[in-house]
Amino acid sequence: MSSGNTTKVIVEKGKQELFVIREFEASREAVYKAFSDPDILIQFFAPAGAIMSYTARDFRTGGQYRYSHSDDKGNIICTFQGVFHIMRAPELIIQTAELEGFPGNENTLLESMIFEELPDNRCRLTIHDVCFSVETRDAMVQSGMESGLVMIFNQLDDLLQK
Amino acid sequence: MSSGNTTKVIVEKGKQELFVIREFEASREAVYKAFSDPDILIQFFAPAGAIMSYTARDFRTGGQYRYSHSDDKGNIICTFQGVFHIMRAPELIIQTAELEGFPGNENTLLESMIFEELPDNRCRLTIHDVCFSVETRDAMVQSGMESGLVMIFNQLDDLLQK
Repeated sequence: MSSGNTTKVIVEKGKQELFVIREFEASREAVYKAFSDPDILIQFFAPAGAIMSYTARDFRTGGQYRYSHSDDKGNIICTFQGVFHIMRAPELIIQTAELEGFPGNENTLLESMIFEELPDNRCRLTIHDVCFSVETRDAMVQSGMESGLVMIFNQLDDLLQK
Repeated sequence: MSSGNTTKVIVEKGKQELFVIREFEASREAVYKAFSDPDILIQFFAPAGAIMSYTARDFRTGGQYRYSHSDDKGNIICTFQGVFHIMRAPELIIQTAELEGFPGNENTLLESMIFEELPDNRCRLTIHDVCFSVETRDAMVQSGMESGLVMIFNQLDDLLQK
């Protein structure tokens, strides 16, 4: 069951960055582990009905990742890839991310994920994305990023309760 | 001897990005190779008088790098590290970069280097850096980035003539 915690998305007009803020009813150690362990990430980091699978899963500073979301017939919906600039447990991940198949050279983004400890064994996650252009950021926002994230965070709520 | 080609730096007020544009009297294959082969990069990518050395030099998509500049007594002046999101010869490098030792979690930048073929066996390099904040970008610009780059590009001119 979802915690009922809301997802705050901050998208300022004309900027090439965005912020996503979400709190969780779990320790930052647990939330950090969910995002840094590929065997846990795979359990919640896909839209409902889609299946996530890796072709690279070297989750460490200097490592590389690549995963796809597929439908129930095995057709690939989309593929993401990137590298981990830093993974520093339990507080920080900095990574690159790119949605494969888009034309142009500058669709990659830089992302930091900061895990803050809150009172009562709770955690705040702040995601900060910066893009090579305002246009790339706007395209990402318009692609339904927010509803996808809300779904994924709710799925993580369920998992953290177990 | 330097080619006399000038280095154009575009820093728009209030933005979290910057551009550096420089032409070279050499093919884009040669210029790309200079930036993607650690044994060549080490010959020109340090200020005059400084010595560059690697502690990581995995120059490939998904690879990691880390290098220092030292003075002639072996004292380390600064250390940079990052990961290669993509290396696509002879046209594109996308990488992260971080100057070690700065406080805070968001000093990493995302950089694209686009190598364009020009007529008469010449090449244009366009570097595009995006930072997590305007403040980080401004600090980088104020640290003497431009004069450092001019020196490095002139050193590359010399090397390309050989």
